[in-house]
Amino acid sequence: MQLGFAMLCAGSVRAKNTMNIMLTNVLDAAAGGLFYYMFGFAFAFGTPSNGFIGRHNFALGSFPSSNFDYSYFLYQWAFAIAAAGITSGSIAERTQFVAYLIYSSFLTGFVYPVVSHWFWSPDGWASAGKSSDLLFGSGGVVHMVGGIAGLWGALIEGPRIGRFGGSGRSVALRGHSASLVVLGTFLLWFGWYGFNPGSFAKILAPQWSAIGRTAVTTTLSGCTAALTTLFGKRVMSGHWNVTDVCNGLLGGLAAITASCSVVEPWAAVICGFVASLVLMGCNKLAEKLKYDDPLEAAQLHGGCGMWGVIFTALFASEKYVAEVYPSVANRPYGLFMGGGGRLLAAHLIQVVVIVGWVSATMGPLFFILHKLKLLRISAEDELAGMDLTRHGGFAYAYHDQDDPDQKGGFPLSRVEPAATTPQSV
Amino acid sequence: MQLGFAMLCAGSVRAKNTMNIMLTNVLDAAAGGLFYYMFGFAFAFGTPSNGFIGRHNFALGSFPSSNFDYSYFLYQWAFAIAAAGITSGSIAERTQFVAYLIYSSFLTGFVYPVVSHWFWSPDGWASAGKSSDLLFGSGGVVHMVGGIAGLWGALIEGPRIGRFGGSGRSVALRGHSASLVVLGTFLLWFGWYGFNPGSFAKILAPQWSAIGRTAVTTTLSGCTAALTTLFGKRVMSGHWNVTDVCNGLLGGLAAITASCSVVEPWAAVICGFVASLVLMGCNKLAEKLKYDDPLEAAQLHGGCGMWGVIFTALFASEKYVAEVYPSVANRPYGLFMGGGGRLLAAHLIQVVVIVGWVSATMGPLFFILHKLKLLRISAEDELAGMDLTRHGGFAYAYHDQDDPDQKGGFPLSRVEPAATTPQSV
Amino acid sequence: MQLGFAMLCAGSVRAKNTMNIMLTNVLDAAAGGLFYYMFGFAFAFGTPSNGFIGRHNFALGSFPSSNFDYSYFLYQWAFAIAAAGITSGSIAERTQFVAYLIYSSFLTGFVYPVVSHWFWSPDGWASAGKSSDLLFGSGGVVHMVGGIAGLWGALIEGPRIGRFGGSGRSVALRGHSASLVVLGTFLLWFGWYGFNPGSFAKILAPQWSAIGRTAVTTTLSGCTAALTTLFGKRVMSGHWNVTDVCNGLLGGLAAITASCSVVEPWAAVICGFVASLVLMGCNKLAEKLKYDDPLEAAQLHGGCGMWGVIFTALFASEKYVAEVYPSVANRPYGLFMGGGGRLLAAHLIQVVVIVGWVSATMGPLFFILHKLKLLRISAEDELAGMDLTRHGGFAYAYHDQDDPDQKGGFPLSRVEPAATTPQSV
Repeated sequence: MQLGFAMLCAGSVRAKNTMNIMLTNVLDAAAGGLFYYMFGFAFAFGTPSNGFIGRHNFALGSFPSSNFDYSYFLYQWAFAIAAAGITSGSIAERTQFVAYLIYSSFLTGFVYPVVSHWFWSPDGWASAGKSSDLLFGSGGVVHMVGGIAGLWGALIEGPRIGRFGGSGRSVALRGHSASLVVLGTFLLWFGWYGFNPGSFAKILAPQWSAIGRTAVTTTLSGCTAALTTLFGKRVMSGHWNVTDVCNGLLGGLAAITASCSVVEPWAAVICGFVASLVLMGCNKLAEKLKYDDPLEAAQLHGGCGMWGVIFTALFASEKYVAEVYPSVANRPYGLFMGGGGRLLAAHLIQVVVIVGWVSATMGPLFFILHKLKLLRISAEDELAGMDLTRHGGFAYAYHDQDDPDQKGGFPLSRVEPAATTPQSV
Repeated sequence: MQLGFAMLCAGSVRAKNTMNIMLTNVLDAAAGGLFYYMFGFAFAFGTPSNGFIGRHNFALGSFPSSNFDYSYFLYQWAFAIAAAGITSGSIAERTQFVAYLIYSSFLTGFVYPVVSHWFWSPDGWASAGKSSDLLFGSGGVVHMVGGIAGLWGALIEGPRIGRFGGSGRSVALRGHSASLVVLGTFLLWFGWYGFNPGSFAKILAPQWSAIGRTAVTTTLSGCTAALTTLFGKRVMSGHWNVTDVCNGLLGGLAAITASCSVVEPWAAVICGFVASLVLMGCNKLAEKLKYDDPLEAAQLHGGCGMWGVIFTALFASEKYVAEVYPSVANRPYGLFMGGGGRLLAAHLIQVVVIVGWVSATMGPLFFILHKLKLLRISAEDELAGMDLTRHGGFAYAYHDQDDPDQKGGFPLSRVEPAATTPQSV
Repeated sequence: MQLGFAMLCAGSVRAKNTMNIMLTNVLDAAAGGLFYYMFGFAFAFGTPSNGFIGRHNFALGSFPSSNFDYSYFLYQWAFAIAAAGITSGSIAERTQFVAYLIYSSFLTGFVYPVVSHWFWSPDGWASAGKSSDLLFGSGGVVHMVGGIAGLWGALIEGPRIGRFGGSGRSVALRGHSASLVVLGTFLLWFGWYGFNPGSFAKILAPQWSAIGRTAVTTTLSGCTAALTTLFGKRVMSGHWNVTDVCNGLLGGLAAITASCSVVEPWAAVICGFVASLVLMGCNKLAEKLKYDDPLEAAQLHGGCGMWGVIFTALFASEKYVAEVYPSVANRPYGLFMGGGGRLLAAHLIQVVVIVGWVSATMGPLFFILHKLKLLRISAEDELAGMDLTRHGGFAYAYHDQDDPDQKGGFPLSRVEPAATTPQSV
């Protein structure tokens, strides 16, 4: 439980860009915390309830109940915060504070809880209790909700100024500190061991062997994704790029979240390998569509999260599924493991439903904020806030002309190169 | 226990100012560790002993005893280190190393242990065993001891050069990296889950429901304090300031420490809200009195810690008090919860006694160091040490003229203005 | 287990130099993870096996067995990664990526597992089961393997350009961020509580009193080493140097690893004190021999690790040895504790065997890489990669002329030296 909060730390230090993103991370946690406490948990798990949404336990009244205790609340809160944090990455560098407060309260207080109600509350229409076809897609839910919400936010407010140049060129607006990126990645990786194995222990009865297996699959998927990205990027761009490798690693971790307890370790290697390709593919697609996501959050969490849900339906092993879900017999398992297409169908429905719900709620929210001129900051503010304009010109490398000295990662000095020449002040 | 040490990490990375403060953090832990091992633990918990001070178990002789084991020692050591760390924040940027070594050895080896003996040793005159009126004011002790000691150090050595200008103007001598401030805040927040719920588990018999509740109250107090500070500062200064929000969050966490296990979650919201106001108020007061505390340690830990002790006496719920302290019947509980003024009286005594003892020991110590010219560094060293003089003038913003481009937090470029032009080599 | 991974974080953020070292840290973990999964664990613990090397359980087949479970695998993987990480420090700043991938795969997939098989597998010829003379030298193994491998790599590829000047002068090529050094040190310290007490719990049956004692000895050794280094450096160079103190602290932690569960707390103080002297001595020796190790890894992990193994043979207490190794009677214990020279002889053999094996495997590997021109990067790349050439001259201080303003640690501005004078703007 506590280790899950290390994720929170990591999320805040991935301040690849301005101090804004750090403040928003702090606020996501704080505002989200309050709203989840007041409304979110009730919507998610208040019992008794209908299949769509909970109706009890607002502000933790009647708590703790026989179903849930305080630590369960905290764990769920951590997931909700994670989803809001993911979204903040997509809209970073060009979004007003008030928009952050509104979207994150709405996401953690309503949108995410409803989804978690469907899949995790005993009353939820799609929960493992009601429907024996779906597996426990915890990771899928958090990553997809955060990623799809971020996608809408970034789409509606448009790319950062300068990201896509007039002549079809795209500029990599790189972050200011690769050190922080790596630090954040490692802290997130570390925290994932609380997120995956830990959530497994909290939400289902603790099964120690399975917990260990969960940590192993998490590890293998992340490692494989990292290496695949390393070599893939080397082939594509000629460079060993540490921040891309970090993102690849996180994509592998995100992808395995949905299935970490029910797949064989060798399958986790496949998961990570494909997750890396999915991430690189989504990034290429984003380039083509001129979609700008400063942290690649929609591609990583949305894309790799979606892959993870599908992957589960392909590789879940019969033995582990039975071990992890002992209460229901004849559970479906992975297509490639001989389980037929039942699980795949169920998981495709899961993907569609989550994408649909999040799009139907967060899409209009971002659009309304946009119309009320509450979403994006002004062009002057955006330019003034960036080191870019303080230096009288583009300070960064072009995709098609990467500086040959790069040799992997960002030498810190490059970020303030022609930086501070007096003429530009 | 181990998570408590994450606090230690965080304490060191709040290097908002020079590398000095990091070295002092490392030394506080190292020197304090040795002195606590040799003397401090014995003073605190050596048994049998009198009500004032312990007399046995020096250098962990006769260890482990039937009362305490090694993990208890480590936990108490962590608290002692925390107190010394808090104090170092108040005297940062202008204090000699030898003064750091002396005060931290004295604080962790004697001053703090004696206080912890009073309240926590079964023999202590004010402990829960001897006196049924006081509650277990763990958080209050650490924060207040550290904060009051820091207050005296900072008062005696005076403000940093340039902090209060000649014409009554005050200059915000801002730190060099908001990234580190945020990182430190999140690490501290994370570690607080070891500090509060963890200490609760270690020192009293583990009560799992209460531990979960403790984590929830900790969370809610921190979140509320953060949001209150965000909006409060926006009103007062027109800016969204990430480092102030971080301090507010920490103030909320510090305040709830004293009562985290015995209050309702909704009361924790009140605790955080008021803690934020207390912190902002103490800061205003410090400005007026020209009291300079680089990390606002006395205001945050002393002020919010004190509020936390009072808060406990107002909101402790009868049910939880009985649950947490089962051994003694008819325990007093919060005034606002119907428990009358008995607990309030006892906690006011606790505050007075701690303030008095720490003032009576650390005040003279700092004064003696000051008279021996061992406390403050020379003016030349202070100026040379600061980036201030390397740039030929004040590099920071004035309170009454905040740069309109600030937009929250510190753009990293501002700290190294005329930085990196090749011609200057 | 999870806390052991905090070490991984720390290892990555000790990016004292370029972004290279961070990428290599990420890759060490990722590539090492895969190779340990595929081969390493099998070599180390596959059973049944011969005394030299394991032959089963490749790619975790037949897993989990009755002997080992997944968490055991992860713990061992963490140790293997740590060894590879240590080595990367010695060859930092001048090594090709492909060399990193090759050496770390070989080290974590073969060299380290074979050693761990000897000492820790029930079948190993030198394990506590087979031979009643050796103690459980876990820490010794990891640190020595990593340090000796690093020694060979750094020796074969030679010092960094500029490290040893023509006229016999040595230049301290300092890192770019003391903040990161301190952060990394604290994270490593924190993680050591997972490494030492945690490994103790995992590998032997949990003995709670001993676990607490382990944490205490770890703490005391680290603290003592830090303070000894602080004052030692002050005497030798006239400065309070925070990064040297950090290295000293880590040396103390590395040294106590071999014996943390079987020595008295007061002995741990001695361990740390001597470890600090060993580290400073090894550094002096390295200077004389013109051996360049950017992170002092061979000196710290190799040297202090070796001292730790010897220290164990001197100070292991009879009572604790019996407590920790209950299965075999008449275990040898420390020379200075009355146990005679049997343990010392056994541990000297351990040192010789590890040094020999690692030298015989990693020495030739690095030499082959060197001959194939795969080891060191070109001079142009090395110079271009360093801030050194971006500033047109040596930017760092000489040992014999430390800038009087240093006042401990590295002011961040010094790394961009000719940086900050207003006239240069």
